[in-house]
Amino acid sequence: MSISAKPASGMRDFLPEETTKRHHALKIIQQTYEKYGFVPLETPSIENLTTLLGKYGDEGDQLIFKILHRRDKLKKALEKENPEEKDLTDLGLRYDLTVSLARVVANNPKLPKYFKRYQMQPVWRADRPGKGRYREFMQCDIDITGTESLVAEAEVCTATAEALQNLGFENFYICINHRQLLKAAIEISGIPSGLETAALVAMDKLDKIGSDGVKDELLKKSITSSQAENLFKIAIRPEGLSEEEEIARLENEISASSSGKAALEEVKTLMQLMSATKAAKLCKVDPSLARGLGYYTGCIFEIRSDLFSGSLGGGGRYDGLVGMFKGEEIPAVGFSIGFERIIMLMDELNLFGKVHSGPDIMLCSFPDVPLTKVIKTAGALRSKGFKVEIYPEQGHKLGRQISYADTASCQFAGIIGSEEAASESLTVKNLKTGEQKNIKVSDADKEITL
Amino acid sequence: MSISAKPASGMRDFLPEETTKRHHALKIIQQTYEKYGFVPLETPSIENLTTLLGKYGDEGDQLIFKILHRRDKLKKALEKENPEEKDLTDLGLRYDLTVSLARVVANNPKLPKYFKRYQMQPVWRADRPGKGRYREFMQCDIDITGTESLVAEAEVCTATAEALQNLGFENFYICINHRQLLKAAIEISGIPSGLETAALVAMDKLDKIGSDGVKDELLKKSITSSQAENLFKIAIRPEGLSEEEEIARLENEISASSSGKAALEEVKTLMQLMSATKAAKLCKVDPSLARGLGYYTGCIFEIRSDLFSGSLGGGGRYDGLVGMFKGEEIPAVGFSIGFERIIMLMDELNLFGKVHSGPDIMLCSFPDVPLTKVIKTAGALRSKGFKVEIYPEQGHKLGRQISYADTASCQFAGIIGSEEAASESLTVKNLKTGEQKNIKVSDADKEITL
Repeated sequence: MSISAKPASGMRDFLPEETTKRHHALKIIQQTYEKYGFVPLETPSIENLTTLLGKYGDEGDQLIFKILHRRDKLKKALEKENPEEKDLTDLGLRYDLTVSLARVVANNPKLPKYFKRYQMQPVWRADRPGKGRYREFMQCDIDITGTESLVAEAEVCTATAEALQNLGFENFYICINHRQLLKAAIEISGIPSGLETAALVAMDKLDKIGSDGVKDELLKKSITSSQAENLFKIAIRPEGLSEEEEIARLENEISASSSGKAALEEVKTLMQLMSATKAAKLCKVDPSLARGLGYYTGCIFEIRSDLFSGSLGGGGRYDGLVGMFKGEEIPAVGFSIGFERIIMLMDELNLFGKVHSGPDIMLCSFPDVPLTKVIKTAGALRSKGFKVEIYPEQGHKLGRQISYADTASCQFAGIIGSEEAASESLTVKNLKTGEQKNIKVSDADKEITL
Repeated sequence: MSISAKPASGMRDFLPEETTKRHHALKIIQQTYEKYGFVPLETPSIENLTTLLGKYGDEGDQLIFKILHRRDKLKKALEKENPEEKDLTDLGLRYDLTVSLARVVANNPKLPKYFKRYQMQPVWRADRPGKGRYREFMQCDIDITGTESLVAEAEVCTATAEALQNLGFENFYICINHRQLLKAAIEISGIPSGLETAALVAMDKLDKIGSDGVKDELLKKSITSSQAENLFKIAIRPEGLSEEEEIARLENEISASSSGKAALEEVKTLMQLMSATKAAKLCKVDPSLARGLGYYTGCIFEIRSDLFSGSLGGGGRYDGLVGMFKGEEIPAVGFSIGFERIIMLMDELNLFGKVHSGPDIMLCSFPDVPLTKVIKTAGALRSKGFKVEIYPEQGHKLGRQISYADTASCQFAGIIGSEEAASESLTVKNLKTGEQKNIKVSDADKEITL
């Protein structure tokens, strides 16, 4: 009567090779973030529901994993006439990293005013599990709070671009838009203000369903065909224009809207600041970019590539959220890397190179060699920096020990017989090439090349 | 009407300095584990309750955080006449890392037979929060499954000892006992077999309540005073004996029990294997060590120090647990470092040295310097490996910018005025010493010493 050994629905076990790859990618992202002056923050997995609810829309609230009361609290709830969900829980699992950041900033007035933090932790969403959609997944966020300066936008964009480059990605670009610019385009198109949200939601799908699909959606929301076409004319960038030409085109299209002009001014400044960075050539103005409904109030960004559909990450300025916990508005801008998607693509594009999870050397020995000798040799090799495993069953035949070393993805077998034991040496067998040589244990660092 | 910004009860926010320290310690532990040939595993935070329940005793089951059903499943449960806890949940949060390991080993027959895995992830327990007792805390475990060889015991003990040494701990020792040795001592003392568990539970408190306290507990369980004294005579090590003398003493005391003798043989062999390691001098036979009720079946270990009470970690052999998911017995031995306690002690003992979370250099500039120039300088310094932050408000007075850099725990302010901008240089001010000098940006790596 054994128990099921499967992980729960939508959950994943990461075996050593997979975990090693994930650690490798996280380390590169972390080092890049730190170079840009971001400092690490970690927040609890469990938050009060008062912290979580009302930040992600009704749909989001439904997807929060909630923790059941225990003992007396549960008993009392179940004794009620008609217990409801709210009687049974007041805690939930972290749904994103931004709300946690907002709470921490409000709770720690001594943090630096311009708080540049990175956070790389899992979040949980009770979505229907599916291919590439998990209920626990890693987020890698950078945010800068406390300043309205566009330097902050430039910093998060540059740091994110460099992180992706350091991971090995090429041929991607940073699409840049401004929430108020898109709103102005909607207004100028003649779409009534009551339908602005509907228009934003439809435009957000442009990448997935194309302009014909978006038009169908707009018509369904009783936006007229000519309004839709007006919107496309402003917000869909014509092919073949340079960034300067596209900005000039938008300046012309948007001239009737003062908020639109101000927004475009910000995009222009950001493009100029970006021209001084290593990501200069990666930036593209994309007036159609909507970035969901979200909480964005200013510039918005998304990483795309011609090599695959969908985005590698996104972000933008959101000046309202952080203040929710503090009762005063705190400007903020952030960029989040889609870690799970990154890992999938790195696998596909073969960007992990020779990331290797197994030990370097497996010590295999004959039964007449004292185990203390084997253990001493392991200690000597470890102190030279090698990752060393000891085959634990000395009674097994040497061939079996060596073939095990191979399946356990070791690079070398280190064989110790009585001769080796007597001469403080080791017969090292390269498990890939089959090549074999006797070396002094004390020379291992010179003789063994990983 | 702002929302409370406090973390939930028993939960902690780790601000940048604290997070940096934790990352620093985790990295050292991880590197040590890897040197010993352990490979990383990560498992989901959420597990099926069938996986979790029945492994930690009734008390433990009560402390598992359970996830409330959602939508239809919840609705259906609440429509029942008298809904109970089991109607409301079938998922829970990971309670330790050992049960996850057991499940993964059972679910992945292709894993190496001698699976040496390390796992460093948080676990959750709904304990009453208190000083040093949290509801979310990190565990750092190593385990070796698939072998009964005492090499495995030696490996987990040596790796753990070296991890602690690499963290900076000295003056600790590894207490070693064997579950069957303690049981034999209980039997030989004349304590009836029905009271064995009661005796184990009482002995487990020796460290906290001393032998008088343990004796009181034993008497309460209707163990006689002379039985208690018999037990102490065998299981409490007399002062002044060497390890060899203590083993000889135990050989004599335990000679009437064949299982006790076999257990002592294993302890002897382990001590001999350990003599070949760097942890040789740290091992102490301690026949009183009980290690809770647990699932231990063989050798048991605990890290103690004379400098503080309590343990830094513990472990042992548990040959029953891993097989629970597989329906066949799989031997296993593990050692777990008490990470939260380690961090607390490292702080107290000042073992973090110059772990530093802030950026290295904050660029401060005058309003007449183009921001693109500042951004370019930041890029140049970053590509030399420095962690660089840009003060985002150029309009602020220089003094204000520099004093902010200081409070944000930067080591240097990098000042850019029009002269610096024109000469591709930087005035670098050491914020600790106040010392200040002008350097070429291209010479920064030679001129700035962190």
